[in-house]
Amino acid sequence: MPCDDERVSGTATTAATSPLLQACRGERPEITPVWFMRQAGRALPEYRAARGDLPMIEACLTSDLVVELTLQPVHRYRVDAAILFSDITVPLATAGIPVRIVPGIGPVLDDPIRTKGDVDRLPPPDIDALEPVRTAVRRLIAELGDVPLIGFAGGPFTLASYLVEGGPSRDQVRTKALMHREPATWHELAEKLGALSRAFLLTQIEAGARVVQLFDSWAGSLSPSDYRRYVLPHSAAVLRDLGVPRIHFGVGTGELLADLAAAGADVVGVDWRVPLDTAVARIAAATGKQPVVQGNLDPAIVFASWPAVRAAVLDVLARGRAARGHIFNLGHGVLPESDPGVLAAIVDLVHETSRRVDV
Amino acid sequence: MPCDDERVSGTATTAATSPLLQACRGERPEITPVWFMRQAGRALPEYRAARGDLPMIEACLTSDLVVELTLQPVHRYRVDAAILFSDITVPLATAGIPVRIVPGIGPVLDDPIRTKGDVDRLPPPDIDALEPVRTAVRRLIAELGDVPLIGFAGGPFTLASYLVEGGPSRDQVRTKALMHREPATWHELAEKLGALSRAFLLTQIEAGARVVQLFDSWAGSLSPSDYRRYVLPHSAAVLRDLGVPRIHFGVGTGELLADLAAAGADVVGVDWRVPLDTAVARIAAATGKQPVVQGNLDPAIVFASWPAVRAAVLDVLARGRAARGHIFNLGHGVLPESDPGVLAAIVDLVHETSRRVDV
Repeated sequence: MPCDDERVSGTATTAATSPLLQACRGERPEITPVWFMRQAGRALPEYRAARGDLPMIEACLTSDLVVELTLQPVHRYRVDAAILFSDITVPLATAGIPVRIVPGIGPVLDDPIRTKGDVDRLPPPDIDALEPVRTAVRRLIAELGDVPLIGFAGGPFTLASYLVEGGPSRDQVRTKALMHREPATWHELAEKLGALSRAFLLTQIEAGARVVQLFDSWAGSLSPSDYRRYVLPHSAAVLRDLGVPRIHFGVGTGELLADLAAAGADVVGVDWRVPLDTAVARIAAATGKQPVVQGNLDPAIVFASWPAVRAAVLDVLARGRAARGHIFNLGHGVLPESDPGVLAAIVDLVHETSRRVDV
Repeated sequence: MPCDDERVSGTATTAATSPLLQACRGERPEITPVWFMRQAGRALPEYRAARGDLPMIEACLTSDLVVELTLQPVHRYRVDAAILFSDITVPLATAGIPVRIVPGIGPVLDDPIRTKGDVDRLPPPDIDALEPVRTAVRRLIAELGDVPLIGFAGGPFTLASYLVEGGPSRDQVRTKALMHREPATWHELAEKLGALSRAFLLTQIEAGARVVQLFDSWAGSLSPSDYRRYVLPHSAAVLRDLGVPRIHFGVGTGELLADLAAAGADVVGVDWRVPLDTAVARIAAATGKQPVVQGNLDPAIVFASWPAVRAAVLDVLARGRAARGHIFNLGHGVLPESDPGVLAAIVDLVHETSRRVDV
């Protein structure tokens, strides 16, 4: 469907025919849509120049900068979606939880949340304080034309793990200990964090985000039975009745894929560990429905020679054809050391290959 | 089969009827054998008292202490196997690679291995320097009677990741970058590390270890295709023709279980993420053979109330019955914060339950 507005994506689309939205609905768009988790980030020199030394949360609350950083990868890579430049801790910080993003480490909380008293004192969402996010989203919608903007939030387990551990952790042992020792306190914590995430999502949706992704990045450290008991109900509460397609993703969630879907996802994000056709078969076997999936090139593949990158991209595309719909992405975020030229070449390859196959 | 020698395990065994060895052979022993990864360690007050401030590598090369620390959990928990108190970096350190174990962090190398020149300079195994390990194993065999001693070594990817990253890492990005950018250098590195690990295993086997476990703890961060191309051949070289049963384990290896088996394992270790019956079905579907599995209680479950712990243990036992043989274990190492009383109660529960079911 030809159309005048090719200025951003290079692909002729309207809202209804945006490849990303078509794929979310399980339709087969003309091209396989592609975007990259953390596409707005340190791999881009223009990102480093624009952000400078501004602390992360402050950057996320500076509307002009959010607009600029969100648009950069759309221009650079010609991806099929923008994702809001922000952080999963923004709704926590704006509500008054003193979380900081420490460069090279991640979210840090100097006084971790460890007791029922700590949980009782957690604040409710502060919608007004999210105004800079709302402003940025509105301006982005105007700038992006028919390229959809993806909003996002953090999942309950991942947010809880930062608050309970006091920062990133390999094993999330304290978080799991709280869960097992004091289930009632855990559920109160997860419910409160879910409310913060949901307010963040609704803010973005009301301002124009057309798709959302819930990042429960570390949920994969839980056994399936613990995930179902302690996390899934809270994620379902965050994801219910949002009115836009929902992508649900976590790292190392090979055994949780059907549960991510059951929590209310329209698209299941898959990390690089699970071949995409295996993921599709596993979800279909558990749910009785062919899923729409997103993923899953290993982010570290960008360091390989181009023939090896190319082979890996084609392999992901071929396996993705087992799904009802496929959004091409990495299996986790863009690594800061990545060469933007390789990422741009991957976008072109995905577009060319999928167009050729579909004709 | 009654026998006088019940002093250590409390279970009447001879070498041939040791439940662990029977399970390794795919037989159904009278009880489900149980031991814990990292059972010799900081969860035990007697461990902390005996080891004091002695640096890890030094402790691993002090035969008297190795004997004492290896026996402690056998006495305390009445497990069905001892595992040598040691560390996967011992054969590296004894060969002259300046690796240190930093408390609370893990293996650290101040000058990481990053270039072909670095790899070329890696030393070969130093068999003589492993003499304290050999001495400790011989004395343990005499002390343990019919309780088998498990020897172990680190897998090529895990050892490489410590050397290339310079320490523990969440993403192993530098290791993967080396693999993808310089495959020939990677293969040389993995082959050299494999030779060090194999020399460590052979030392333990020749001195009397009856089973070995290869810990490729971080191999689960690789996609299946990269694991097969870059790691499996080197692990197979380490594991070939050892003459004793081999357990092969890595964290987050849900998609690699059949590959761990293909590398030459008699028993596949499973982490807590994959329900044991799912793991069995997955391996059987890929290999055409019912496997023997080890695992897989979430180490963090010990923080739950006893009824919740009990339910989780019974669930693992029930799922394990899908396998040709099952060695009960945690899905990763004992957490230092664990209550030894809970671990001892788990051993009793496994023994009582499996005895009752089999009668």
